[in-house]
Amino acid sequence: MDPNVLHNITYGVYIISSNNGEKINGQIANCVMQITSEPVTIAVSINKKNLTHEYIEASSRFTVSILEEAAPLAFIGKFGFKTGRNEDKFKGVNFKLLDSGCPVVLDYGLCFIEARVISKMDCGTHTLFLGELTCCEMLKNGKPMTYEYYHQVKHGTTPMNAPTFIRGERVAR
Amino acid sequence: MDPNVLHNITYGVYIISSNNGEKINGQIANCVMQITSEPVTIAVSINKKNLTHEYIEASSRFTVSILEEAAPLAFIGKFGFKTGRNEDKFKGVNFKLLDSGCPVVLDYGLCFIEARVISKMDCGTHTLFLGELTCCEMLKNGKPMTYEYYHQVKHGTTPMNAPTFIRGERVAR
Repeated sequence: MDPNVLHNITYGVYIISSNNGEKINGQIANCVMQITSEPVTIAVSINKKNLTHEYIEASSRFTVSILEEAAPLAFIGKFGFKTGRNEDKFKGVNFKLLDSGCPVVLDYGLCFIEARVISKMDCGTHTLFLGELTCCEMLKNGKPMTYEYYHQVKHGTTPMNAPTFIRGERVAR
Repeated sequence: MDPNVLHNITYGVYIISSNNGEKINGQIANCVMQITSEPVTIAVSINKKNLTHEYIEASSRFTVSILEEAAPLAFIGKFGFKTGRNEDKFKGVNFKLLDSGCPVVLDYGLCFIEARVISKMDCGTHTLFLGELTCCEMLKNGKPMTYEYYHQVKHGTTPMNAPTFIRGERVAR
């Protein structure tokens, strides 16, 4: 299989956050898409090993922060290459808690979406959560970061738990 | 709800094709993402009203042609704003049939993926099909067309059956 084929699929760069009671966590994801327009539903793909997966299962809520191109690698790395099991990822980060108790990251976010899980599909290592939109807000104008921009311009790498990780690929140290 | 929020999600532009026996059809889609890497699985979202949906249900196969930026609007319109119930969309188009009998569009394609459906999720107006990769091939080098490029540079519109259609939006005549 030629991995270049899969690299031609287009993605954005997002922070998916969720909560389990008062505990909050978030992670970088590139697999987010709107599935229906009436009602508005959003699908996100999350690795079962990730703490955010556990929290989405617990609260049936998630938020998606759509990152702008200006988001620095260090900020992405904070949410993408660390686990919330060892540290509080929200420390030093601007965020707010929505009425549901679900957190949403505001730094470097153009806008955000909150959704309530209405269905899910077991995809082996990952779960595809389908959420109905409960709340959304524009925060600023700007260009959404694409995954290609993250790789080509920011020289970002792919965590092993990402759906698009390919063995042999350069990973974060 | 501010529709600008949803417009900040990043997508590509793809032709999803499938077959029902010897009958073949294809359609434009923007909702394609890789979900897992071992095995490689791909999710696509298809409106239940579409003929391609019927064919994917029949054959459990689909292909994804990843379109290049150079793909002209007229070509996209052929697959995006017409139904295969009234005409043969493949007439005058370069395509091939894979071993499974599933067709794949080659014109303006950087590469293609074929997948066998292993799971699906009912999402109301749409179905999310999860397919395991069975075949993929690079066709040429180039830039994948993003949905933003299609809108901003090509001035393309959104069909009403698309997941990302928003009421009040400019639609094709």
